[in-house]
Amino acid sequence: MGQVTPLRRNQPASLDPMMKLVSADMHNVNSVILTRMQSDVPLIPELAGHLIAGGGKRMRPMLTLACARLLDYQGARHHKLAAAVEFIHTATLLHDDVVDGSNTRRGRRTANLIWGNPASVLVGDFLFSRAFELMVEDGSLRVLRILSNASAVIAEGEVNQLTAQRQIATSEARYLDIIGAKTAALFAAACRIAAVVAERDEAVEEALDSYGRNLGIAFQLVDDAIDYASDEATMGKDAGDDFRDGKVTLPVILAHARGSEADRKFWREAMEGRRTSDADLALAMQLLEATNAIADTQARARHYGQLAIDSLAGLGTGAARAALIEAVEFAVARAY
Amino acid sequence: MGQVTPLRRNQPASLDPMMKLVSADMHNVNSVILTRMQSDVPLIPELAGHLIAGGGKRMRPMLTLACARLLDYQGARHHKLAAAVEFIHTATLLHDDVVDGSNTRRGRRTANLIWGNPASVLVGDFLFSRAFELMVEDGSLRVLRILSNASAVIAEGEVNQLTAQRQIATSEARYLDIIGAKTAALFAAACRIAAVVAERDEAVEEALDSYGRNLGIAFQLVDDAIDYASDEATMGKDAGDDFRDGKVTLPVILAHARGSEADRKFWREAMEGRRTSDADLALAMQLLEATNAIADTQARARHYGQLAIDSLAGLGTGAARAALIEAVEFAVARAY
Repeated sequence: MGQVTPLRRNQPASLDPMMKLVSADMHNVNSVILTRMQSDVPLIPELAGHLIAGGGKRMRPMLTLACARLLDYQGARHHKLAAAVEFIHTATLLHDDVVDGSNTRRGRRTANLIWGNPASVLVGDFLFSRAFELMVEDGSLRVLRILSNASAVIAEGEVNQLTAQRQIATSEARYLDIIGAKTAALFAAACRIAAVVAERDEAVEEALDSYGRNLGIAFQLVDDAIDYASDEATMGKDAGDDFRDGKVTLPVILAHARGSEADRKFWREAMEGRRTSDADLALAMQLLEATNAIADTQARARHYGQLAIDSLAGLGTGAARAALIEAVEFAVARAY
Repeated sequence: MGQVTPLRRNQPASLDPMMKLVSADMHNVNSVILTRMQSDVPLIPELAGHLIAGGGKRMRPMLTLACARLLDYQGARHHKLAAAVEFIHTATLLHDDVVDGSNTRRGRRTANLIWGNPASVLVGDFLFSRAFELMVEDGSLRVLRILSNASAVIAEGEVNQLTAQRQIATSEARYLDIIGAKTAALFAAACRIAAVVAERDEAVEEALDSYGRNLGIAFQLVDDAIDYASDEATMGKDAGDDFRDGKVTLPVILAHARGSEADRKFWREAMEGRRTSDADLALAMQLLEATNAIADTQARARHYGQLAIDSLAGLGTGAARAALIEAVEFAVARAY
């Protein structure tokens, strides 16, 4: 009989086991990050440091480290590569905040608000280039292939999302394509490169890719649900941001699909930017509740979370495996 | 006795010999460019194609091809790499136009004007990632190192320029650092990688790097002079753009340094954005003329042009060598 790992547990899930698992490695990754974001142009470390020191969970580099631990990798190559992954992520955050005109991230003012869009664009470019320099120093063409491909897919996903913005007709399938590209591709790549440095075969690469990809989708779905379910203090971003930006996320897609004619008219107008008051947001919340859209977004997230956990079948044991599983539980349980 | 190649000649210099030299290769490069800018997200080829098909000279990929020819390289690896160089350049142009808020480039409306800043930022990111994918396919870590380093240096130079913007106190040395990074680094890398694919030694790499770097500086200096010396129809950008943007280029640095107290006050106010009328631009032109600032910027360009030509000492013969030399003459003679 195979071993079944159920997704839900009684005690609240936490990222602590994964953080504890990789804390020594993460210390090294942080050193690489701090060293390699330096530049003779002072604005670069100043701006990059604002975001990098700004209390992010470092989820993606943590995944690289935890997956390497799962495979019992004993070397140190993953420190530079995890830093490269975090630089790619930071570059996309800087550009995202410019694209969205965001004012807050992780509870702090965004870099574009403080230093302006031009500086955010260019420092993002710098960090992205630095990421590739780190990968080149590592010297694995396979890692370079995985991360350059992920970077292109992320950018493609962001453009796809931009063209879907304010389009209430966006299908759930297209939405999944978008988040698969803009979020899950880097989660997948962050996990997959651990198999490369640990010199494991293609099947292990694929398994970790699948773990990261499904975790990434679950993570994004829960983020999208939380955007309608929390306040700024707990989330570090404004509640209803997606609503006001006309971002057609899964909660909206479900509520629109399940709504009355009048509800659908409301959602169309809201996504087109003609319903952005606090009263409109309150009505949106009410419709999401009535159509079970938030709960079902979370249910979809649990589905992908279970796929992530099942991807680890036969891989590793002990603390690393337990931490990777609990990370999924944490990701899907955040909204409760 | 050594051979001396004088910079100036009687007949007007032209890029035609270089274009003719590489036309068959450039056909292949254009195929790679067109194929690899495709995406399932239609906005990407639409926006990228606007700029890529928009009448640029493809100076940088042309240099890769011409340098490969100089070294008698017989393979085809340089086609993908030249396309990668052009993608990096296109990505930086897209981001530059966002940073500067430019409305015209190469005589056409800019992508950011037509599709907005968000799309320009993200499609730039996509092209940049695609450039790395092309390099990874080629598989040379040395080429990857050269171009990832150049990319980081370019971004650093752009941020440096941003922080120098509107600062009349910018020194000529700092200005040369900025253009060395934002323009010359990619010229240098485009030439240098030809030595890598042709499997020549470090000395040849250095020579081509020096050729490209000095050509790039000369090219940028002449561009900066032309910004004050031409109209939109001939240049494809607005005359006086740099003036209105408060860009402290070498002509301004020289005119400011050589001006009277009143002139210096004018330049400071102009760079700070308090003197941007047509009458102010006319006065600026007059001061540039009176201080010989344009002519001396061109003289500096000739100096770097001569360094570029001297870098080719002992390298190649015949049509390739002649074309590379004439490209320098063309670059420095454009303003006359």
